[in-house]
Amino acid sequence: MLSFANPSVVEPQPATSDVINSVPCLDSAWHERAVARLNCLTKPLGSLGRLEEIAARLVQIKETEQPHCFQKAIFTMAADHGVTEEGVSAYPKEVTEQMVLNFLSGGAAINVLCRQFGIDIVVVDIGVDSEPLSAAGLVNKKVGRGTKNMARGAAMTESEVEAAFRVGIDLAFSVEREKTLIGIGEMGIGNTTAASAITAVLTGRPASEVTGHGTGIDGASLRHKIEVVERALAVNRPDASNGFDVLHKVGGFEIAGLAGLIIGAASRRIPVIVDGFISTAAAAVACVIQPRAKQFLFAAHRSNEPGHQALLEFIGQNPILDLQMRLGEGTGAALAMAIIESAAKLLNEMATFASAGVSGATA
Amino acid sequence: MLSFANPSVVEPQPATSDVINSVPCLDSAWHERAVARLNCLTKPLGSLGRLEEIAARLVQIKETEQPHCFQKAIFTMAADHGVTEEGVSAYPKEVTEQMVLNFLSGGAAINVLCRQFGIDIVVVDIGVDSEPLSAAGLVNKKVGRGTKNMARGAAMTESEVEAAFRVGIDLAFSVEREKTLIGIGEMGIGNTTAASAITAVLTGRPASEVTGHGTGIDGASLRHKIEVVERALAVNRPDASNGFDVLHKVGGFEIAGLAGLIIGAASRRIPVIVDGFISTAAAAVACVIQPRAKQFLFAAHRSNEPGHQALLEFIGQNPILDLQMRLGEGTGAALAMAIIESAAKLLNEMATFASAGVSGATA
Repeated sequence: MLSFANPSVVEPQPATSDVINSVPCLDSAWHERAVARLNCLTKPLGSLGRLEEIAARLVQIKETEQPHCFQKAIFTMAADHGVTEEGVSAYPKEVTEQMVLNFLSGGAAINVLCRQFGIDIVVVDIGVDSEPLSAAGLVNKKVGRGTKNMARGAAMTESEVEAAFRVGIDLAFSVEREKTLIGIGEMGIGNTTAASAITAVLTGRPASEVTGHGTGIDGASLRHKIEVVERALAVNRPDASNGFDVLHKVGGFEIAGLAGLIIGAASRRIPVIVDGFISTAAAAVACVIQPRAKQFLFAAHRSNEPGHQALLEFIGQNPILDLQMRLGEGTGAALAMAIIESAAKLLNEMATFASAGVSGATA
Repeated sequence: MLSFANPSVVEPQPATSDVINSVPCLDSAWHERAVARLNCLTKPLGSLGRLEEIAARLVQIKETEQPHCFQKAIFTMAADHGVTEEGVSAYPKEVTEQMVLNFLSGGAAINVLCRQFGIDIVVVDIGVDSEPLSAAGLVNKKVGRGTKNMARGAAMTESEVEAAFRVGIDLAFSVEREKTLIGIGEMGIGNTTAASAITAVLTGRPASEVTGHGTGIDGASLRHKIEVVERALAVNRPDASNGFDVLHKVGGFEIAGLAGLIIGAASRRIPVIVDGFISTAAAAVACVIQPRAKQFLFAAHRSNEPGHQALLEFIGQNPILDLQMRLGEGTGAALAMAIIESAAKLLNEMATFASAGVSGATA
């Protein structure tokens, strides 16, 4: 098990601005070394397709020819959204807290997948609208009881943004650095509405193109949800070039926390697997704050939410899976994590033509 | 470990024609029961996308609401192809035998993935051009020492086709029926040429559209390979409506064996995960022999070989993964098997709204 459930072991960490500035650039020499190694393995050149591309990037990120993924963790951050009072979701906002308890008792989809693939799940209450939850296993980092309604003003105060972002950085600094692979997921009734607002701001597309059915609202509710996103943007006028301003105006606690987690992980050369629409919105904000963070991201899957493709283009990542999922929690990240681990294992464990006594190509 | 390495435990089995005729139809009532169950689980309706579709089909195939995949096996069948004397491959044909030994010593890509996902690998020599291989773990079912050159006449005799097809049926009957998930893969220098010929016959497309670079030949060699496929079709004139005739004229031992394995598995309600281009060619032949076999197939991935898409359409399956792989061995099947197991586990293990105390949709 990972250690972040016990905050006492967390050592003093650098200031947030130093963490942001310390995200490194990847070195292409390590990519070349990876390709040279891949080309010695007992398979036709390039025949593992995207698994080779993934393996090569892990080598670049970790700066070792044998990148291991022994410690796998999904961080699922949960928070509530004041915008639910506009009636944008198919589910009541109590479901956020109820699902956190479901995560902790092991009954949610993310639990099943984490058990299957040997992944630790770290459930973080970063802003659920509830009394402090005392359930075993919960990482209690509650910054507030849900955001304010973004359709009427800023979702968070600037100091709330700072605190939530810092929660993510601190969690990234609490994991083992060499062999950890991080996945990110979320739970928050109303958070596709926040993610749609972020997508509209960052990609410049109209709300109508990047707002979807979320947990399953019907056509009339979708038109209302689009109108709510438009109102939130008109009321707040977020600055697309300033990630913190976007979080302040239309973000959520979990989205700010995940953005901080990405920046913290990238600064420590820990690869981050981004789940679906909301997680990718957090990743997009992280890339506005520090564009070099892109190199440390793997997009798990293409969500069925209509705004997701625009966000994937924004972070420059081609998703690994396309299974028409739209659940969140980190479920896509868990599946993709297994495939990313496959890529590392293939690189580390396959025989070479020389070691196996297999003849090379003649053509 | 599975039991087929020990042929003494195999019980007497029905005649091949009876096995072919006994492939059942799926019952839509089981699909409805699966959907009803999926809709009670703690997730938005339909939000697990294709995982729900996969889970529902497992329920239909197994006729149980709790389909387990406790025993996972990939059958990798190896054989040589006389057509290699035409110079159609980037690798010498000795590589088939060398790679069989690599499989048995655990150094190939398929071994790495099977270890990761807890899958048994069953390596079958069904027609390698070698002396009998005595390596530990090999299932020795050699029908012949490679096929004849299909560019000059029939690749196999009719009795060789029958024997190789029966090898597959017998293997399908040697596995535990209730909880087994089978994946199929292959190894055989020259077998993309055979698969291209099969694809051209069954789909009616020109050889130039369904013949690709295989293990990595260059443009001039590809033009030659296309011409070899065209010659094989002109010399043999396979009957597209007769799967056994197609195998006889342009097939391979491993392709015939995999087709038999599919039919045997389908007759016993065992799901089969089809790997890439060559495995799908075997699946397409199986579907000509018995169209009801389609319902038991899952297409693992979309191969980079240009003929694969036409074969996927022919067997009516949408692939689970698209990772630009073109290695064979069962590597795509191993990855997809993990995802199919995820689908089963989600159905079996997730809490319901009622059991977890989570509120349902209000909209």
